[in-house]
Amino acid sequence: MQAEIINTGSELLLGLVQNRHLSHLALELTPLGITAERQVCVPDGPPVREAIDQALDRAEVVIVTGGLGPTSDDITREAAAELLGCPLHTDESILQAIRARFARRNLPMADNVGRQAMVPAGARVLPNNFGTAPGLYFPPPTLGMRPARHLFLLPGPPRELHPMVRDHVLPILRAALPPEEDRECRIYRLTGIGESQVESRIGCQVMARGDIEVGYCARPAEVDFRIIGPRRALDEIEPGIVAEVGEWIYSRGDTLEQSLVAHLRAQHLSLAVAESCTGGSVADRITDVPGASEIFLAGLVTYANSAKETVLGVPRELLEKHGAVSEPVAAAMADGARRASGSHFALSTTGIAGPDGGSDDKPVGTVFIGLAAQDHPTVVRRCFFPVDRATFKQMAASAALDLLRRHLLGLPLDPGGGSALPTLG
Amino acid sequence: MQAEIINTGSELLLGLVQNRHLSHLALELTPLGITAERQVCVPDGPPVREAIDQALDRAEVVIVTGGLGPTSDDITREAAAELLGCPLHTDESILQAIRARFARRNLPMADNVGRQAMVPAGARVLPNNFGTAPGLYFPPPTLGMRPARHLFLLPGPPRELHPMVRDHVLPILRAALPPEEDRECRIYRLTGIGESQVESRIGCQVMARGDIEVGYCARPAEVDFRIIGPRRALDEIEPGIVAEVGEWIYSRGDTLEQSLVAHLRAQHLSLAVAESCTGGSVADRITDVPGASEIFLAGLVTYANSAKETVLGVPRELLEKHGAVSEPVAAAMADGARRASGSHFALSTTGIAGPDGGSDDKPVGTVFIGLAAQDHPTVVRRCFFPVDRATFKQMAASAALDLLRRHLLGLPLDPGGGSALPTLG
Repeated sequence: MQAEIINTGSELLLGLVQNRHLSHLALELTPLGITAERQVCVPDGPPVREAIDQALDRAEVVIVTGGLGPTSDDITREAAAELLGCPLHTDESILQAIRARFARRNLPMADNVGRQAMVPAGARVLPNNFGTAPGLYFPPPTLGMRPARHLFLLPGPPRELHPMVRDHVLPILRAALPPEEDRECRIYRLTGIGESQVESRIGCQVMARGDIEVGYCARPAEVDFRIIGPRRALDEIEPGIVAEVGEWIYSRGDTLEQSLVAHLRAQHLSLAVAESCTGGSVADRITDVPGASEIFLAGLVTYANSAKETVLGVPRELLEKHGAVSEPVAAAMADGARRASGSHFALSTTGIAGPDGGSDDKPVGTVFIGLAAQDHPTVVRRCFFPVDRATFKQMAASAALDLLRRHLLGLPLDPGGGSALPTLG
Repeated sequence: MQAEIINTGSELLLGLVQNRHLSHLALELTPLGITAERQVCVPDGPPVREAIDQALDRAEVVIVTGGLGPTSDDITREAAAELLGCPLHTDESILQAIRARFARRNLPMADNVGRQAMVPAGARVLPNNFGTAPGLYFPPPTLGMRPARHLFLLPGPPRELHPMVRDHVLPILRAALPPEEDRECRIYRLTGIGESQVESRIGCQVMARGDIEVGYCARPAEVDFRIIGPRRALDEIEPGIVAEVGEWIYSRGDTLEQSLVAHLRAQHLSLAVAESCTGGSVADRITDVPGASEIFLAGLVTYANSAKETVLGVPRELLEKHGAVSEPVAAAMADGARRASGSHFALSTTGIAGPDGGSDDKPVGTVFIGLAAQDHPTVVRRCFFPVDRATFKQMAASAALDLLRRHLLGLPLDPGGGSALPTLG
């Protein structure tokens, strides 16, 4: 089943607010077998009516966000009612609820607020427990000229929209839908390999079958490889995918740090990190995961050489002889973090994020990544990410997390060598 | 001048990636007097061609993002060439650049990569210094049937898109546009104050003049206050803005961490941080700023109590008596970070990010922020951010950076004379 998303609001087109509606709605609808085939953002005004009209021509589910509020630029309700020829009437129970809401907060209620109690004939009211304007649902029978269409008008603020989707829109669609097709979307998340490599190693082969849709999404240091098709076909090709790119697959959905934290928690293992060039981003990503405190003991961001000495116990001679960005210092940092925290594992990063500070021998983008483990000699990998500073931090942090993942799974620590093994978790 | 934005990519419609392109492009185009009148997101495939066709009918500037990569689902280049009747040829210099890029990184180059060197006749190549696929610009003369149209095909990854917009798209549009009006857009960036407070303190007053357009953009812990109008009018009201909300304005463009690092560099002052609940995000933000190494000595992410003791020297009695999330521990953490690093200043954070771990006395969202300074007794502020984990980390990190900003500027450490930093809502 196809859906179209219409987002109204000049603040979106002015760039003042990020439009997160598409992402939220798509993630909610996809498991029902409903795919967003188009999303459009139009300014408040006449384009709203036109956009609804065109979307109803194409898609079975049309969801409009925004424009239900009290101010003069909120015209979604009126545009839909006019387009569908449904007269508007005031719903007394909504009006009461709005009055009660203002009274509870001791706020005066402006006249224009009452507009939000207007309901087009035939539309069903979707209660809003987190704001003033209720949502509206036009079930197929109200739309005589276009059968089997579902039109939803929903509020724009995410904290009103999200619960309304969960509590009202999804149950309505679940009830209205034919039994789900046997199609599935699977996502393999990879790190340490490029998008074009994924395609040449396995993507082309999958696509040649003809019955599976293939997609890629590349982010710094990461690629999502996506296949959509009949469940049986996906099951069939899965062994081939694992054989070809299995060692780079870190999860089927979780972030790299989520899968790592879950693995360490399950094994009752602890981690510390010593960061220089990544500047805290490894620690930041690990502590984004709820429950990270069970496994994460300390992150030591030793930016200055003096801090590498005093906090991590890196010998001054090592720093003077090899420089802070070097294999021996990366090893000493990882050892020092493990010693200081008493953790099972410690990762370290030292490199040149740029834009300045590079040399012929160690150009901007060079990074050494260390891993100290209680059950293994300390290892160091040298990587090269000649990109902007922010991307460098992200790629180096991912490479550090991936080094531990590979160690935990017994995979070759230098990607490219080995064969397939299971993902974390 | 009107623009339309077309975003391609199934990963956007599947909700796997947030679409930040509209916001970025709109903020870049608006100061040129170009407004986005419509944005549409379509899947890779035939809808791309149709979307470009329709957009060229309506808008003078059409910007397409995504679909220029090497994989089979990347078809933007071919769709535009076909629509406009421009044959494609291989550009040898692009192919050389791509080969060199792969060679520099010691990566094998898959055959499909060469597709990115295809250029439609009449199109101008926009170099991509941060990725493989160059952008393409179709100037008005190439589009015989629709004069005065500017069509841009740009790469999807933000780290490639953003510099290409800045370095190529904006200069092209600036040269193509009629001489700029005497209008200006100014942005004041504030932290520690809510959007509605900014509006009631100064926004309404500015808007009442009638000649200045006012806008707000609220992010966790931050508000951008934006005014657009004749330069003279903006100069006139500036003193009023500074008088009303000046103490919350941290910059006219820089991020909070950029402005802080610049200030510390100029004064030759150094900083360390001791983080618990923010988990490295304060250090991460500081080290996002090029040149941060001149002022940032160390970030000590002491997640476990044992690390607070061993790394920062927080007395065990203090942890046992008051708990890790407490004013005395925040103070001891800041003191410990300053001692361990020898810095002029040290910030500390200890709080409850959630979702679990709260109590009646210290509910989820509670955070204590410490500041140790060589020239001032250590201070601790208690704040409350009852929001999701990721937002909590962001708000607590901003509050910590702001505490130092206020100290450096001699501003009251309790904004607005109140008891705590403003919370959400």
